[in-house]
Amino acid sequence: MLLTLTDLIGTFAFALSGGLVAVRHRLDLFGVLVLAIAAAVAGGVLRDVLLDVTPAAIADWRYPVTAIAAGLVCFAWHERVERLRNPVQLFDAVGLALFAVLGAGKALQFGAGPFAAVMLGVLSGIGGGIARDVLVAQIPAVLQRELYAVAALAGALVVVIAAAFDLPATPAAFAGAGLCFLLRLAAIRRGWRLPVAGGGE
Amino acid sequence: MLLTLTDLIGTFAFALSGGLVAVRHRLDLFGVLVLAIAAAVAGGVLRDVLLDVTPAAIADWRYPVTAIAAGLVCFAWHERVERLRNPVQLFDAVGLALFAVLGAGKALQFGAGPFAAVMLGVLSGIGGGIARDVLVAQIPAVLQRELYAVAALAGALVVVIAAAFDLPATPAAFAGAGLCFLLRLAAIRRGWRLPVAGGGE
Amino acid sequence: MLLTLTDLIGTFAFALSGGLVAVRHRLDLFGVLVLAIAAAVAGGVLRDVLLDVTPAAIADWRYPVTAIAAGLVCFAWHERVERLRNPVQLFDAVGLALFAVLGAGKALQFGAGPFAAVMLGVLSGIGGGIARDVLVAQIPAVLQRELYAVAALAGALVVVIAAAFDLPATPAAFAGAGLCFLLRLAAIRRGWRLPVAGGGE
Repeated sequence: MLLTLTDLIGTFAFALSGGLVAVRHRLDLFGVLVLAIAAAVAGGVLRDVLLDVTPAAIADWRYPVTAIAAGLVCFAWHERVERLRNPVQLFDAVGLALFAVLGAGKALQFGAGPFAAVMLGVLSGIGGGIARDVLVAQIPAVLQRELYAVAALAGALVVVIAAAFDLPATPAAFAGAGLCFLLRLAAIRRGWRLPVAGGGE
Repeated sequence: MLLTLTDLIGTFAFALSGGLVAVRHRLDLFGVLVLAIAAAVAGGVLRDVLLDVTPAAIADWRYPVTAIAAGLVCFAWHERVERLRNPVQLFDAVGLALFAVLGAGKALQFGAGPFAAVMLGVLSGIGGGIARDVLVAQIPAVLQRELYAVAALAGALVVVIAAAFDLPATPAAFAGAGLCFLLRLAAIRRGWRLPVAGGGE
Repeated sequence: MLLTLTDLIGTFAFALSGGLVAVRHRLDLFGVLVLAIAAAVAGGVLRDVLLDVTPAAIADWRYPVTAIAAGLVCFAWHERVERLRNPVQLFDAVGLALFAVLGAGKALQFGAGPFAAVMLGVLSGIGGGIARDVLVAQIPAVLQRELYAVAALAGALVVVIAAAFDLPATPAAFAGAGLCFLLRLAAIRRGWRLPVAGGGE
């Protein structure tokens, strides 16, 4: 119950990021909703398609409905949402942490090896942002911006390593999500970035 | 039989739109064929992958062959096809109506809930155009242009609502397709558009 | 064994192309790795999703690890890799030939019809390059550049035609791969291109 609630908060935060990008690119109302849905569910859908499982976003209507609600909020009050950038980034970090950890756990549960589980955890976390940016013909921010995917990677790694050593899954998930969340917050505050080949800016 | 024929006409029309976009971006012959196929089958393929069904475009060679034929037509006579924009838009509206209605029906048949069925119906109708535009690094027209997805949405809704009330499926499909087709035609004629956040042009 | 080794060489070469594109677009370290993986595995993953099979890149960790290694090589020594363009193109041609032939064979094995098998073989060969270019918001090179997909098409055709006539599969695969490889080499050397509609450059 608590898990689903947090999951839906993450979905809402991801969808807000999609809706804002759509408004900035002057998409129409439908475009705003599509980007909200894509940003919120694409990561999980990709993971589930690769695991050959029915995607959660198809099986459970609460995910797309939450994303649509976030899209409508962006459409109606985009200026206010833009000004709330800090709280939105906070929720987004919650979403990233949850999606990475739950994604890796789901992959393990459906028989993926440890390496694939880490990759699918990261994909769950970042797939939505990639779909969002591809749909407005931009290079995905996650491939360029301050530390984002690495936080997801750290969270997914904790889950998979814990499983490899037969440690209990629930505390491992909390630890992984906490690590991911804190890494992402620190990256935002301090502007941590990954290096670029050849250096320079 | 009649259904398949209409379905192939829709496929042909969608493929023409892909081929024309490819020619305008000066893609080579292969690029024209790829965009024709992508525009014609991507929506249905996405729907079937999400439903975990073998995509019709893989199972039945007539769909890709029809798309390839449309691509060759665009390649050889693109100026003439450009001038036929009105009939092509007409066929495209037929395709949209059919794909949305059949897509929603197929989703229901394979166990999707009503909400997911509407989304998959819309996706069947608009997925091809999105794939086409992403492949030439443009923001998908369906996210910006005059009423297009909303017509698909209306058609899919009719099918799903009828199923929810146990009304007979065939007349519902005709009604949904008719509504979608007329909405789309009216949108083209009168330039109906969805609003953009913040208004203005 | 020899097959897997060659397959991994192809994966490495495809991943190098992804890593180089990422470095040129100034993506960060993570972006370089994502593009290396996408370029190496997207074609096969797409094929396997359409065949409803667990993707090899998920089932066998050696593929993503090889791609990541190639990405790191690009990141660390991108100037040197750029200068090795000729050998890289050679490996890439090996990868293309292998992926097209193996992709068509796998499609037949999992029950695809001959037409679908040819399409899936081509998709296996070119899907990675398409994903790579879409992720940096460029029109895929394979839709514009000198003969590339046609080489994959020729290789896949040999495999599918041989199967249709019940000829032994292994020599057919060798013949198809050889044909694809030689076509691609000749296209690079002589700058063979497909025509563009309307002609002219």
